[in-house]
Amino acid sequence: MNAKQQLLIGGAWVDGEAETFAKTDPVSGEPLWQAKAASPAQVEAAVAAARQAFPAWARKPFAERQAIVERFRGVLESHREDLARAIAHETGKPLWEARTEVGAMIGKVAISITAYHERTGERERDVGGAKAVLRHRPHGVMAVFGPYNFPGHLPNGHMVPALLAGNTVVFKPSEQTPLTADLTLQCWREAGLPEGVINLVQGAAPVGQALAGAADIDGLLFTGSPKVGGILHRQLAGDVDKILALEMGGNNPLVVKDVHDEDAAVLTILQSAFLSGGQRCTCARRLMVPQGAVGDRLIEALVTAIDRLHVAGQFDEPAPFYGGLVGVQATDGLLKAQADLEAMGGTVLSRMRRLKEGTSLLSPALIDVTGLEIPDEEHFGPLLKVHRYADWDEAIRLANDTRYGLSAGLIGGERADWDDFLLRIRAGIVNWNRQTTGASSDAPFGGVGESGNHRPSAYYAADYCAYPVASMEADDLALPDNLPPGVVL
Amino acid sequence: MNAKQQLLIGGAWVDGEAETFAKTDPVSGEPLWQAKAASPAQVEAAVAAARQAFPAWARKPFAERQAIVERFRGVLESHREDLARAIAHETGKPLWEARTEVGAMIGKVAISITAYHERTGERERDVGGAKAVLRHRPHGVMAVFGPYNFPGHLPNGHMVPALLAGNTVVFKPSEQTPLTADLTLQCWREAGLPEGVINLVQGAAPVGQALAGAADIDGLLFTGSPKVGGILHRQLAGDVDKILALEMGGNNPLVVKDVHDEDAAVLTILQSAFLSGGQRCTCARRLMVPQGAVGDRLIEALVTAIDRLHVAGQFDEPAPFYGGLVGVQATDGLLKAQADLEAMGGTVLSRMRRLKEGTSLLSPALIDVTGLEIPDEEHFGPLLKVHRYADWDEAIRLANDTRYGLSAGLIGGERADWDDFLLRIRAGIVNWNRQTTGASSDAPFGGVGESGNHRPSAYYAADYCAYPVASMEADDLALPDNLPPGVVL
Repeated sequence: MNAKQQLLIGGAWVDGEAETFAKTDPVSGEPLWQAKAASPAQVEAAVAAARQAFPAWARKPFAERQAIVERFRGVLESHREDLARAIAHETGKPLWEARTEVGAMIGKVAISITAYHERTGERERDVGGAKAVLRHRPHGVMAVFGPYNFPGHLPNGHMVPALLAGNTVVFKPSEQTPLTADLTLQCWREAGLPEGVINLVQGAAPVGQALAGAADIDGLLFTGSPKVGGILHRQLAGDVDKILALEMGGNNPLVVKDVHDEDAAVLTILQSAFLSGGQRCTCARRLMVPQGAVGDRLIEALVTAIDRLHVAGQFDEPAPFYGGLVGVQATDGLLKAQADLEAMGGTVLSRMRRLKEGTSLLSPALIDVTGLEIPDEEHFGPLLKVHRYADWDEAIRLANDTRYGLSAGLIGGERADWDDFLLRIRAGIVNWNRQTTGASSDAPFGGVGESGNHRPSAYYAADYCAYPVASMEADDLALPDNLPPGVVL
Repeated sequence: MNAKQQLLIGGAWVDGEAETFAKTDPVSGEPLWQAKAASPAQVEAAVAAARQAFPAWARKPFAERQAIVERFRGVLESHREDLARAIAHETGKPLWEARTEVGAMIGKVAISITAYHERTGERERDVGGAKAVLRHRPHGVMAVFGPYNFPGHLPNGHMVPALLAGNTVVFKPSEQTPLTADLTLQCWREAGLPEGVINLVQGAAPVGQALAGAADIDGLLFTGSPKVGGILHRQLAGDVDKILALEMGGNNPLVVKDVHDEDAAVLTILQSAFLSGGQRCTCARRLMVPQGAVGDRLIEALVTAIDRLHVAGQFDEPAPFYGGLVGVQATDGLLKAQADLEAMGGTVLSRMRRLKEGTSLLSPALIDVTGLEIPDEEHFGPLLKVHRYADWDEAIRLANDTRYGLSAGLIGGERADWDDFLLRIRAGIVNWNRQTTGASSDAPFGGVGESGNHRPSAYYAADYCAYPVASMEADDLALPDNLPPGVVL
């Protein structure tokens, strides 16, 4: 597949009319995509195209929409390797991981069809001469804002259920991942999705602002940073009619209790904190380890494993555990975060380093911040903070000491500890003896606190893609046997 | 049951510390309830009491919470007549209708238990050595704002599911219906609900402002006017962590097509527009009638039926179709609305009149506003506007010509008309040959446009009373057979 390097508006690929922007591979520096961004007028045109396409798409029987979405699945399968390579190139993630992302996109279709029927769909029952029927209807035009860390899978998790339910879409991907969006939209067109049902506007913040501010959108589905999510929540204040779903980040805790298998604990920590180079919103950011000899030994083993962790280019052989960050600029922010934590008194146990100048390859950081007052921030990269705790209650208190609440994990402990953890921890994804990353696609996905606005995605995305319509209906209009009190006809 | 005429904070009935307010029967003028409103400090104390009670309540097994909620149902049954009389007295609705409201409160318990399990609840499946478990957890402290038109049923529709899910509650009823709230909370205490799990703060806007602004609430469940709902939406802008459910009003259309049974059509119109004196949020406010002789005859029959409609005191015999409005002040607003519509060129076909000075008894208004530019406002009383239409497309266009979208109805027509109506109309409750009022308790209830913020209530109230927690869990921490790429332990 070749990139179009254009916008998609009403079925036509068109050049942007605003400033030029470009994306290069953050490890090799190879140019990947370059084009002009959408102008505000083009964003409006995309919304208008989606509006125009809406009635016909919404009126198709579900089975027809399903058939097109299933054709899209087939097209994804046929371009599986092209897509994986594009994702690996522009995100910096290893090819093996990019392939699992395409697999998740493919798997989303069947899950979304099941979820549509279970969470929304239709049902009816007889009630005294009439039928009580529950149906669900699409909202209309949905603006979808995608993140850069899963440029295929995460917007796909909004778009597939939105389209199945009968909405039309204007998609604004991250400006750091225009290529994956470009190829994905080509797949939709190849699948025969009608013109205007999906539209693509490329560009940075001005494009997002124009789309979020468009009067004629009916909803906004966002996966991205808490900062931008908060801006959108304030921007749509008073617009009760527009449905807003925000999936944001976290400062996720991982608590280690008594551990019998040190290697397994270390592996779970690595997979929680450093998978995708820490660029998953479910990554553990804070590790709670007991004080004392057992904890000391675990930390020592973790430092050793971090030293041995293979970090390299996306296409290197043998394959790396993780590759580059999304861009070189992101690495500057993480190195600064490490320096800041050290300046606040943190002890660097494993030091994050640039592995090769001019690339986004970073080694992981492990920093002991026990007892320090540090900001409650999400560092979106391979940086894990350690808190040593005295007892279980302190571990829980530390774990919950965040305004976010996306994921949390417990390693070790008995069933009673897990039951207690489940009751006391505040997060939407809570795992035991399993990595915090890698949520199940057939479960709802969302967080509490400032991690989201209580519109969970994944399996529950069906909920925000349609609204219920409750009907009492009867073919026949007839008088009842008894008139109500006070009525004379 | 005697009214306490107090607040309920942390299990103690206490006197308010702010200004005195009182409620009288709007038809008889009889004093019903008088007390001091809650001060801001008392609102804070109620929230703190709910916070303190939360952990123990949330940790109870569902079956224990269910048992208490079922005891509450038994207590309601034992006080059924007291409650119905209180509702009739303070809302002005006929006793027969107030009895159905208490019935709806009683019925809500079983429906909420079913909905909890179906929409939220728990499920698990095995995945390669671990379990994927989906649980749901309560948010914490929920502020519940009740309306005056169903002072028992509608806040009950938030509180029963909120309590079942494990939340604690601070309830602020309408200042026009303090008595029903007072008695309802006594029923909860009689049922053995632990101290602080439900709290009652009485008073007008300042109490609502203090409660909505309380830092320590986790959510706000509101049923009331679009104006206040919009203020709340803006007030909570940026607070993504607080769940907000708004159920508001509508300017609901009722479209009449070819009608074979004129009496049945007239009855459906009366029940849609004038049930509860037009004080249901689902009441039809706009009637679309075809131009020509058939429509003329229907209007004539409707005017005759309106003339004969029996409107009288709540306890009168024979029973009235509807009684008084909630207060004399409300009648002033409706008479002004009639005068305004007339001034804009509306033709009054049935004139709204005060039936007795000093009471809230009003006869119904039927006003032809065909072709006029009139404001898109909800007139919350017995006032029905008529639009004569030329053809079906115009009827649909008129029906959808509102920023709201709560209920809509079609009278007459064939199955194909109904299918078309369903596809084109924008509303959350859409009925055919049945009154727009009287939604089914076991269906979701909510509107689109400015009628709500896409958190439907009734059967779907379960959704906003709990958040999902997805877990991958394994008793045993063990290394997998193969390590991931790039890891050496």
